[in-house]
Amino acid sequence: MGLIVQKFGGTSVGSVERILNVAQRVKDETDQGNQVVVVVSAMGKSTDQLVDLAKAISAAPNKRDMDMLLSTGEQVTIALLSMALNEQNLPAVSFTGWQAGIVTEPVHANARITTINTEAVKNQLAEGKVVIVAGFQGITENGEITTLGRGGSDTTAVALAAALGADKCDIYTDVTGVFTTDPRYVKSARKLQSVSYDEMLELANLGAGVLHPRAVEFAKNYQVRLEVRSSMERVEGTVIEEEATMEQNLVVRGVAFEDEITKVSVLGLANSLTSLSTIFTTLAENHLNVDIIVQSTTEAESANLAFSIKTQDLMETLKVLENNKGVLNYEQLDAENQLAKVSIVGSGMISNPGVAAKMFEVLAENEIQIKMVSTSEIKVSVVVEEKHMLKAVEVLHQAFGLNKEA
Amino acid sequence: MGLIVQKFGGTSVGSVERILNVAQRVKDETDQGNQVVVVVSAMGKSTDQLVDLAKAISAAPNKRDMDMLLSTGEQVTIALLSMALNEQNLPAVSFTGWQAGIVTEPVHANARITTINTEAVKNQLAEGKVVIVAGFQGITENGEITTLGRGGSDTTAVALAAALGADKCDIYTDVTGVFTTDPRYVKSARKLQSVSYDEMLELANLGAGVLHPRAVEFAKNYQVRLEVRSSMERVEGTVIEEEATMEQNLVVRGVAFEDEITKVSVLGLANSLTSLSTIFTTLAENHLNVDIIVQSTTEAESANLAFSIKTQDLMETLKVLENNKGVLNYEQLDAENQLAKVSIVGSGMISNPGVAAKMFEVLAENEIQIKMVSTSEIKVSVVVEEKHMLKAVEVLHQAFGLNKEA
Repeated sequence: MGLIVQKFGGTSVGSVERILNVAQRVKDETDQGNQVVVVVSAMGKSTDQLVDLAKAISAAPNKRDMDMLLSTGEQVTIALLSMALNEQNLPAVSFTGWQAGIVTEPVHANARITTINTEAVKNQLAEGKVVIVAGFQGITENGEITTLGRGGSDTTAVALAAALGADKCDIYTDVTGVFTTDPRYVKSARKLQSVSYDEMLELANLGAGVLHPRAVEFAKNYQVRLEVRSSMERVEGTVIEEEATMEQNLVVRGVAFEDEITKVSVLGLANSLTSLSTIFTTLAENHLNVDIIVQSTTEAESANLAFSIKTQDLMETLKVLENNKGVLNYEQLDAENQLAKVSIVGSGMISNPGVAAKMFEVLAENEIQIKMVSTSEIKVSVVVEEKHMLKAVEVLHQAFGLNKEA
Repeated sequence: MGLIVQKFGGTSVGSVERILNVAQRVKDETDQGNQVVVVVSAMGKSTDQLVDLAKAISAAPNKRDMDMLLSTGEQVTIALLSMALNEQNLPAVSFTGWQAGIVTEPVHANARITTINTEAVKNQLAEGKVVIVAGFQGITENGEITTLGRGGSDTTAVALAAALGADKCDIYTDVTGVFTTDPRYVKSARKLQSVSYDEMLELANLGAGVLHPRAVEFAKNYQVRLEVRSSMERVEGTVIEEEATMEQNLVVRGVAFEDEITKVSVLGLANSLTSLSTIFTTLAENHLNVDIIVQSTTEAESANLAFSIKTQDLMETLKVLENNKGVLNYEQLDAENQLAKVSIVGSGMISNPGVAAKMFEVLAENEIQIKMVSTSEIKVSVVVEEKHMLKAVEVLHQAFGLNKEA
């Protein structure tokens, strides 16, 4: 007998029929003698509907009010799933975030979990009940309702699994696992049996989208064994654990990609030593996320700087830079959009120094120009023109042998 | 400067436009220098939608799960109203039932308020904020979410007004006040300037429908000054207080009525002494509400008994009586439906003994047969055929001078 945390996202609980399907997946686990904690998101588009209501009232609603509003979405799901399980004579109890003891820092809209008081959940498990917990939400020490921001339900599930010492945390989603690249765009994409936390972290950050990076980081820190699997199809998923099985000793495990990237260039920076930190501090203060940063010092007196952002942040970024031109002390701004980021990820890179070189070579052979480069220990990212994105993914996917069966 | 509790029902907050209208009504009070606590219900039909979802999953959902589900309705409204007020630069804070310190007995679906810990609400009022509280819901001492049953938001408002020592509790609704009878059916119905708690209690119990009897009882016990008024039209409402102003010294203050009544007769009861209590205990145990009871002992050896119920409870009532025939020891059951109850209400009756006689006389003059009679100190109810109901209401309304301007 084990303790399993299951997490079902919005699509998986998007209708009454799907909630009944989830109830069956829960029953499968209890039938095998396992204790189960289920974490659920709000039903399908219900969060969007709540956001629309809020926007009809205020262009920029108070964050506390938004948390109050949005946290009702998961509460509806836990109540309905509990009804579905109790209807099947499987004793179940539903808990809001605060009832499950999920304490967060005092920040609205994007709070981090600080503690979980597991007593109430443990008591109900001990009574033989399935415990259903509202994802995405918590409570501050002062009794304020908070939400965890994007990917919040994943984080709730992993944090609960860690706090309860669960044997496993299954993340049910609308795909069957983690793939070598996005199967919607690349036909030869294959599902991976396993990936390491670090690989998943890079893949999650790079838009693979099946699992939120915060949740992966949490799982890595607390060594929670994760599995990403389908809520619809009854097939094996992808296991995320410390040491992933080396499939065919693959150096590269996946190819991730993301479009709508813009490269911003700041030219003629007078004093690169201080202006560099000033620029990124200013952007951060304005909640603008910068991804790849490239600095070139061609002349003694001035430097050029380039960084990539999401295209949707372009207007705001230029405004901030222009408003601070006096402080930042640069000559000119330049922006190039319709770009994309393509990345190869794999723990094996650490001991295989030729991987980046091979990537550049493959792209050059296919006449795909590289605009920017960024590397980490287990990842190489390049920025290319958007129109070359899928071609780049395909040739890299093949060149690193990801299309072959393990 | 005073402290005012305002309560807005589901129709009054049924859309974004109506929530903005409510925000304006709140602002009217703060503009006059008053502190305001607002209690709101779930938006329009949202509770019905949640009930439909539950019914699609379970024919008889667990009550704890239903409370978990339904309490989200008011939480949505408080968040949206708070956004609307904050958008108008009127500082506001929203509280769920548990955040507002509304503690109930540990009963789901129909809990009574036991205590209100007003500290959080008082602190926010002291900071100059409008406090918005979710009606209809509370929390047990063990942290379980409960709901208060029908009319729950009225009760929340009155209980908060009592606990906070508010100067007034305004119940906003879709009518402009309490009328001498239902203005939808009787054209000459007039709005009353004031009624006493006891009169309102009889009117509320008799289907006048504007205010829940539990809330009126609470208001009477704690001497909370109530006013029923329109959320749409800016006109004076009806004040409910201990000593209502005597308008033209009217003995009768209102005529209430209710259709779909059935009279059930139990004939040939062997031992009326014990069987009477046995019958009503059995019905109560099956949650069947009996209204008027008439007992006649024509013979020494057996007795006949008649009582009125809502027609919707007829099948269930007959089933319970038949299942218990052995214990109850009667000869025969009889049921007459398509009946209605018409009542006259007024505190003045206590010192005017001829009121019931006049009522019977007026009905007789109009050839309306009386099937059953019930009297209290301030009320006389008769059961008549449903087809005579509105005629009876009209002739009584006129006979007791309710159609004349005060």
